[in-house]
Amino acid sequence: MTKADIGLVGLGVMGANLALNIAENGYTVAVNNRSAQKIDDFMIAAKLEGLDGKVMPELDLAAFVRSVKRPRSIIIMVKAGRPVDDMIELLLPLLDKGDAIIECGNSLFSDTEQRFEYLTPKGIGYLGVGVSGGAEGARHGPSIMVGGSREQWENAAPVLKAIAAKFKGESCCAWLGEGGAGHFVKTIHNGIEYGDMQMIAEVYGVMRDGLGMDASACADVFKRWNEGPLNSYLIEITGHVLEAVDSESGKPLVDLILDKAGQKGTGVWSAIAAQELGVPATAIEGAVAARSISSRKNERIAAEGAYGKREGAVDISLDDLEKALLAGKIVSYTQGFSVIARKSEEKGWGLELATIAKIWRAGCIIRSRFLDQMAGAFAGDASTNLLMVPDFVTLMKDCHPALRRVVAAGALGELPLVCLSSALSYFDSYRQGRGTANLIQGQRDFFGSHGFEIEGRGADLHGDWPATIAEAAE
Amino acid sequence: MTKADIGLVGLGVMGANLALNIAENGYTVAVNNRSAQKIDDFMIAAKLEGLDGKVMPELDLAAFVRSVKRPRSIIIMVKAGRPVDDMIELLLPLLDKGDAIIECGNSLFSDTEQRFEYLTPKGIGYLGVGVSGGAEGARHGPSIMVGGSREQWENAAPVLKAIAAKFKGESCCAWLGEGGAGHFVKTIHNGIEYGDMQMIAEVYGVMRDGLGMDASACADVFKRWNEGPLNSYLIEITGHVLEAVDSESGKPLVDLILDKAGQKGTGVWSAIAAQELGVPATAIEGAVAARSISSRKNERIAAEGAYGKREGAVDISLDDLEKALLAGKIVSYTQGFSVIARKSEEKGWGLELATIAKIWRAGCIIRSRFLDQMAGAFAGDASTNLLMVPDFVTLMKDCHPALRRVVAAGALGELPLVCLSSALSYFDSYRQGRGTANLIQGQRDFFGSHGFEIEGRGADLHGDWPATIAEAAE
Repeated sequence: MTKADIGLVGLGVMGANLALNIAENGYTVAVNNRSAQKIDDFMIAAKLEGLDGKVMPELDLAAFVRSVKRPRSIIIMVKAGRPVDDMIELLLPLLDKGDAIIECGNSLFSDTEQRFEYLTPKGIGYLGVGVSGGAEGARHGPSIMVGGSREQWENAAPVLKAIAAKFKGESCCAWLGEGGAGHFVKTIHNGIEYGDMQMIAEVYGVMRDGLGMDASACADVFKRWNEGPLNSYLIEITGHVLEAVDSESGKPLVDLILDKAGQKGTGVWSAIAAQELGVPATAIEGAVAARSISSRKNERIAAEGAYGKREGAVDISLDDLEKALLAGKIVSYTQGFSVIARKSEEKGWGLELATIAKIWRAGCIIRSRFLDQMAGAFAGDASTNLLMVPDFVTLMKDCHPALRRVVAAGALGELPLVCLSSALSYFDSYRQGRGTANLIQGQRDFFGSHGFEIEGRGADLHGDWPATIAEAAE
Repeated sequence: MTKADIGLVGLGVMGANLALNIAENGYTVAVNNRSAQKIDDFMIAAKLEGLDGKVMPELDLAAFVRSVKRPRSIIIMVKAGRPVDDMIELLLPLLDKGDAIIECGNSLFSDTEQRFEYLTPKGIGYLGVGVSGGAEGARHGPSIMVGGSREQWENAAPVLKAIAAKFKGESCCAWLGEGGAGHFVKTIHNGIEYGDMQMIAEVYGVMRDGLGMDASACADVFKRWNEGPLNSYLIEITGHVLEAVDSESGKPLVDLILDKAGQKGTGVWSAIAAQELGVPATAIEGAVAARSISSRKNERIAAEGAYGKREGAVDISLDDLEKALLAGKIVSYTQGFSVIARKSEEKGWGLELATIAKIWRAGCIIRSRFLDQMAGAFAGDASTNLLMVPDFVTLMKDCHPALRRVVAAGALGELPLVCLSSALSYFDSYRQGRGTANLIQGQRDFFGSHGFEIEGRGADLHGDWPATIAEAAE
């Protein structure tokens, strides 16, 4: 009997699309799901696409596992959290040494890390895989960030590389590092995505509220920007979102959509990871904050009542907005990649930033021309800091004056630029040889004897501060 | 034999000062330390202050415990983390039901929470107590934030209230809530302190680099500000730090101190707590980021080389700087108190924000006239949001235009204002009835079918988006 090249458990939207993608690429895939109905539905869909010949459905988990070629690669695509652990326990007695579980959900990287540690000594490979691109990407080519057991990666690589998106012929799938490396990189990908989306929303706010442009005029600008250095999936879909018209009212759809943003947690995970590593990620934090404030609509309406509605036009050019967005993006990606680099150092993953930029060039939500430039820049430079890579220094020099003008106009014009202003202040702190933390060190020594350093005289010095300070507040 | 009113284990700087404070307030304190030498040294210090009559030293832990009045209150002041757990295990067999361990170190509130859960079923009270004010405060009156077992708090209250700082006769010590409430509030206190210090440093940077003022001129300004609405311990000591002269060189000391700020973790804890609760705390995050960037001095020097040194004066008045600092402070405290309010809700602590503001009015690092205003404002208002309390609405209305001018001048003048600009963008997001998250919801529905809401038509609506988007990056 013929064996399947790979197995896949969990025929939800993402799982089903991945399975079809595998079949379409010429590999035989065994599929399993707890519910027989889901399997039947899937087989109908596969048949409609003429792919049923490459699919082996199995309702019984043991038979499903037996139907896969050894060493086995079993993709699991179930809800993150407890369901993943439950599925691992169900599979464990059915697997042989050298087989691999390939978990493709949105797992917290530390969970993946633990599962990797749990399975490795048992001789079972564990791959934690970040898949970006939504349902559409899963079906036609996502970006695939692989972490975990290297040996089992080699077994699964042909299939995973085949189903991934391609950028100029190169597969957007790579093994990045051991343990939770794949899911960690996916988390930061999402954090960066938050930043991109928020900065686009801020620029849109300036157009709408500061320049008085209607949705269709804004759409035109984003379409034009998509031809230039900002070319990216998110800029492209922003044009589509802004030009969509509500059929019921004939009004621009975007004007009807409630301004309360949801979030599913990966932005917060990114921010917490950055804090734990001690790496500033103010753009991600700002984007998470902005979504959180947006969700408190009633409070915002009350606050507008208390403080009055902002009014009036601001004086800023569309060219400045375009360059400001690019400058903000450089800072945001600098921060995100610094978080990845620092985590890699901590974990000894040896992540290559150029590889990560490469596999993000197609398939995923943040795919862009910008990432192709980054891939090139990181490949030719040992630095892990985008702000210091020569090509980006040139780009940033060209763009930061525009970012300044936009932030200043927003500040005076009462337009909130959470991410763009945090990007600017990060840049200005970072490129300041002599900062102001000397004052903070003086204060800390004053009240807590924490000590300070003077060049040439060493550290842990103390000031001869006045002995007692009267209670300031009395 | 006379019994001590309270016991204290751990005669490090903080412990020794607390013990002297207790003795000076007329209570008998039994003291214990692992090292006999530390006990001897402490007794010499106590004798010098004429307080040895109120101190009962005991090297043997069991004898020490026996020497304390029942129900016993035993303060432990050892290093945070494992040493606290070790000490708890040593004390446990020596204590009787109804006794209490009062842990006064800088513990992570979740550790305190766990210890409380561990000891409560054993009939041993556990108080996790945040003590702010440094060594000086511990000796002469700190701010004391108590959390944990309420019954045992009642036993220890007379001593703790007596040794705390007083504000117009009121003790700056209060039981706030169960479990880790005390240490949680202390953590956010420290986060707010980070924000205050960073905003002061930013304003100092504008004076030094944008207005060309020398340290002594800056000192004069902070001294003057300390007479006005910014009156606070931190503004006062900033004046002292700025006017200190290095005896060796005759130069202002602050000009010699290296601009690399240290941090001991509570800022990061605050930021992570806020992220976990989904409450924006961009001022705390900004302050943590700024310290982290400051510590990367070599990178900053390299970046200054790549991008050029900033130059030139900015056009901003000292009055604007004063009001900008006040406005930034309002936002930062709004965020910090929102984090506390949300955590209290989650935990069912029932924290009273007015009480917290009250016990911060003296003894602790952030003590200020501002906190007295806040205590009054919260006491008279059910809101947990400072930005919506009437007195502060008036204050903010008066100050935010100055904050705008300062942020704009900083942006154009290349002066980093990490916290001040994040405070402004938070404010402008928060007081905006109609934000820009409608675009984000449109994007999220486009690529992930996340759905959006239209008023009057319900939630979970979807757009009729173009079916496929060509690969943006190809």
